[in-house]
Amino acid sequence: MENIEKIRHSLAHLLASAIMESYPKTKLGIGPAVENGFYYDMELPKDFTAEDLSRIEARMRELIKENQDFTGKKVTKIAAKKLFKDQPYKLELIKDIEDKEVGTYQNGAFLDLCKGGHVDNTKEIDPNAFKLTKLAGAYWKGSEKNKMLTRIYGVAFATKQELENYVKMQEEAEKRDHRVLGQKLDLFVFSDLVGPGLPLYTPKGTILRDELAGFSEQLQKEKGFQKVWIPHITKIDLYKTSGHWDKFGDELFLVKSQESSGEFALKPMNCPHHTQIYASKPRSYRELPLRYMETTTCYRDEKTGELSGLTRVRSLTQDDAHIFCTMEQVEQEFENIMEMIKTLYGKLGLEFKARLSFSDPEDPKYLGDKANWKKAEETLERIAKKLGLNYTIATGEAAFYGPKIDIMVIDALGREWQCATEQLDFVQPMRFGLEYAAEDGTKKTPVMIHKALLGTIDRFLGVYIEHTAGNFPLWLAPVQVAVIPISAEKHSEYADKVAKELQGHGLRFEVMAENESLSKKIRQAEMQHVPYLLIIGDKEIQANAVGVRERGKGDLGAMPVEEFLNKVKKEINNKS
Amino acid sequence: MENIEKIRHSLAHLLASAIMESYPKTKLGIGPAVENGFYYDMELPKDFTAEDLSRIEARMRELIKENQDFTGKKVTKIAAKKLFKDQPYKLELIKDIEDKEVGTYQNGAFLDLCKGGHVDNTKEIDPNAFKLTKLAGAYWKGSEKNKMLTRIYGVAFATKQELENYVKMQEEAEKRDHRVLGQKLDLFVFSDLVGPGLPLYTPKGTILRDELAGFSEQLQKEKGFQKVWIPHITKIDLYKTSGHWDKFGDELFLVKSQESSGEFALKPMNCPHHTQIYASKPRSYRELPLRYMETTTCYRDEKTGELSGLTRVRSLTQDDAHIFCTMEQVEQEFENIMEMIKTLYGKLGLEFKARLSFSDPEDPKYLGDKANWKKAEETLERIAKKLGLNYTIATGEAAFYGPKIDIMVIDALGREWQCATEQLDFVQPMRFGLEYAAEDGTKKTPVMIHKALLGTIDRFLGVYIEHTAGNFPLWLAPVQVAVIPISAEKHSEYADKVAKELQGHGLRFEVMAENESLSKKIRQAEMQHVPYLLIIGDKEIQANAVGVRERGKGDLGAMPVEEFLNKVKKEINNKS
Repeated sequence: MENIEKIRHSLAHLLASAIMESYPKTKLGIGPAVENGFYYDMELPKDFTAEDLSRIEARMRELIKENQDFTGKKVTKIAAKKLFKDQPYKLELIKDIEDKEVGTYQNGAFLDLCKGGHVDNTKEIDPNAFKLTKLAGAYWKGSEKNKMLTRIYGVAFATKQELENYVKMQEEAEKRDHRVLGQKLDLFVFSDLVGPGLPLYTPKGTILRDELAGFSEQLQKEKGFQKVWIPHITKIDLYKTSGHWDKFGDELFLVKSQESSGEFALKPMNCPHHTQIYASKPRSYRELPLRYMETTTCYRDEKTGELSGLTRVRSLTQDDAHIFCTMEQVEQEFENIMEMIKTLYGKLGLEFKARLSFSDPEDPKYLGDKANWKKAEETLERIAKKLGLNYTIATGEAAFYGPKIDIMVIDALGREWQCATEQLDFVQPMRFGLEYAAEDGTKKTPVMIHKALLGTIDRFLGVYIEHTAGNFPLWLAPVQVAVIPISAEKHSEYADKVAKELQGHGLRFEVMAENESLSKKIRQAEMQHVPYLLIIGDKEIQANAVGVRERGKGDLGAMPVEEFLNKVKKEINNKS
Repeated sequence: MENIEKIRHSLAHLLASAIMESYPKTKLGIGPAVENGFYYDMELPKDFTAEDLSRIEARMRELIKENQDFTGKKVTKIAAKKLFKDQPYKLELIKDIEDKEVGTYQNGAFLDLCKGGHVDNTKEIDPNAFKLTKLAGAYWKGSEKNKMLTRIYGVAFATKQELENYVKMQEEAEKRDHRVLGQKLDLFVFSDLVGPGLPLYTPKGTILRDELAGFSEQLQKEKGFQKVWIPHITKIDLYKTSGHWDKFGDELFLVKSQESSGEFALKPMNCPHHTQIYASKPRSYRELPLRYMETTTCYRDEKTGELSGLTRVRSLTQDDAHIFCTMEQVEQEFENIMEMIKTLYGKLGLEFKARLSFSDPEDPKYLGDKANWKKAEETLERIAKKLGLNYTIATGEAAFYGPKIDIMVIDALGREWQCATEQLDFVQPMRFGLEYAAEDGTKKTPVMIHKALLGTIDRFLGVYIEHTAGNFPLWLAPVQVAVIPISAEKHSEYADKVAKELQGHGLRFEVMAENESLSKKIRQAEMQHVPYLLIIGDKEIQANAVGVRERGKGDLGAMPVEEFLNKVKKEINNKS
């Protein structure tokens, strides 16, 4: 066990010690170490308040300073039952233990049923590096059938500095919460009548979606991908043929025709549909690689309790693509995709790591020719090296149908999110009987590559809103320029003239002609994270110019409209 | 009854006369006049061939030339039963007749049970203005439970010229059949695994979809429409609130979550979803009109038997929009929409008529304030006059929620298709409790306008493929230019150089570098209806030019690539 885990586990005991001193009738559940801290579940004799929590936290600090030893001792189950006779949850735990003996740990006056994993003495714990954070309800043993206990959460680190960093990061994450920013910036909404997990995008949010998808499509077009279109439903026969029905049948939204007896489903992925376009006519090696791309929405029957803003939705729009090619063409195609990923995330200001998910040669679940697997995995690693990727290899993590590269995006808070993916597929082309006429006239089976650059655009947008805290780069910003006449009366005419020029150059702008103070209008535009504000007053009109303020940089001074236009057009073209 | 109907009905009797002469054991069903002709259902004692049909047709001509009278006579049902004792289907019909007497008609030796509607004498029929066309199976009385009879179809007109026109038009329609052209030009496919009524679009078909939708979106953007995005499913609560559940509940595809108990449906229209974006925050009169547009797919549970190519599908992608505005803004909005329709169909080379569907003041189904209806209907007609539309008024044809203008497109064969629509809606804003703060501070209900320019893009594409016979205008053509090196060996290098220039200007092209004869390659490109062919041989290379052939115009001679580029770019920009 790592030392920090021992500290966290010991703090759970100290929490219980402090509680039992004040409320000896408390019935204790369990108190493990968890990520970033610990918790303890208990049945308290009273409702707890924030003041109670803070008092208990102070008492824990005193206990730490007593330099208490943690002393473990094995006792028989019979002896244990006597020791914990007033603790019904502990008795239940003792009954469940299969060994003849059970572990106990003593610190100060407090004895707990415990397998161990503690510091030797509380002096190893920095009394200023922990904090009780919140109360929550938790069913005993996680089952709704049992009693609801109170869970007290704490966070704990080795040093005060680490705790402070963590708290700051949490505050930062809260400020960047995409659900909050989504409403503040008017990007997307949920409706009780439409249902959970089904976001509706406002005009501003739709600009973000379209610009992101448009950039992805542009990169793909340059690499020879062609757009196709498929319906969102299908007879389930398609998934029975592909094999998805057996594997994912219960994650599908089923569709019922009231008119015909056919069984339909909403598509949870696009590959089986795309095979049907490939299969619609005889193919020759001359046509390969055939690259079908599509920005299209899939539906997955996610559990209501697991839905969260845009990062976990039921309607997933993906920048998906499927390549049909020969085994010899795989390397070039994988490299092309990785180049697009580098360009895309580079322009979006996101770092990433690659995870190469390979087969486990011992595991029989991996279908297809072993030599092909080996060759493909070598190819993937060669590309990772050639492109200088920061990568790890995860053996046994490949899908059953082929190896893949998953891209983990690292956001501004250092969190990792799986976004892009490129996957090789030896299996579906066989299951659908796909063929091409090879140069020697024989019929051969192509391989398939699945790829997504942004992945699920909704999820990516959730991540990206938090990464940028709503400060979208100019080319993405729903409103790129706010035109602010200082006096609505005196300066609006010139402001409209400027607006017309912006419109002529395809810029997205708002004219803030309300009869408000300049400072209020500037504050409003800044709250909306508008990249450029153009201030217009007597001075600017006389100089035939605009006063430019740039987000994050402040006042750039006055410049002619033409100069401003050249500046922003250059920035937009470069996606900088 | 119109005279042509009498002719058609009389020909049905003559068909039965000729049949009974040759096959007296035939059991006759019914023989009505229909659009463009007639049919007769019968149980024949033998399988019929094309030769039989042609022999019967010849005999009908002879019977016409006998100048037979059609003589009607009423008889009692008892007498009728005797007259038709060998005709079980006629006996069944007699039983079903509620009057005491039934009608009979005699021509020559043939007596039929009939209410009448005939020419007085066969000399009124032009023996060269009809034709037997086909045989088909038809259940007696249209029910699957009954016996399958043989239906013999004929077409008939007043004059030979009319028949010839009709036959020519049918042949032309067959040549233009979008299902045939769709396959020949590789535009869309159907898959048995995906299901009927669910087209999948190939790269070429997707270009057509995207270019059409893109043009529609561009026109809308210019008029201040903003794109939004909604999911394809919703809880049915949305339709219970909108009122659609009661009216269209059984035309919906229902969606079943295996995880949660909520009832969902695939959206058959977009208006209820769009109201939820409007309703997501308080609105002020300053924001109106709010115009939400979206190219999105709806799903309707159409009967399998009624599905037909792209013109009747289950997945309907629409260029839909909803405007939320005040009653005072309706006129300008309707006019804007009509201007877009004029521009769109003008560029597409389609004529159209407008149908103004108004309420019937006597009919209680029309909801909302009568004065508003009257005002709105006057507005619609004023716009129709102002824009010089070819329009008719259809009283009592309005939807229950408001009056509308439907646009009937007239194709190259003179057929009419309903495509664009603009509809006023007084009802949904009320049902969803939509509001805006008026200038005087009170809360008011906006009105809603529904509009589609292309309508259902799939259906429009079906119509447009037949209208153009696959000769799409340059800006729409999936392949705009075919580059044809005369010798694959000698001229491909220069062809590739030309191709690069085309690519640099965003043109869609194919290089036909196969080792085939020039004439074969030209024929192939022409079969694909490619607008421009660039022929490249020694002469062109020496002159640093390309030999240009334009679809429908032939050889335009050699011109420098730059000149060609300027020419096509101008045509594309003008959508000419």
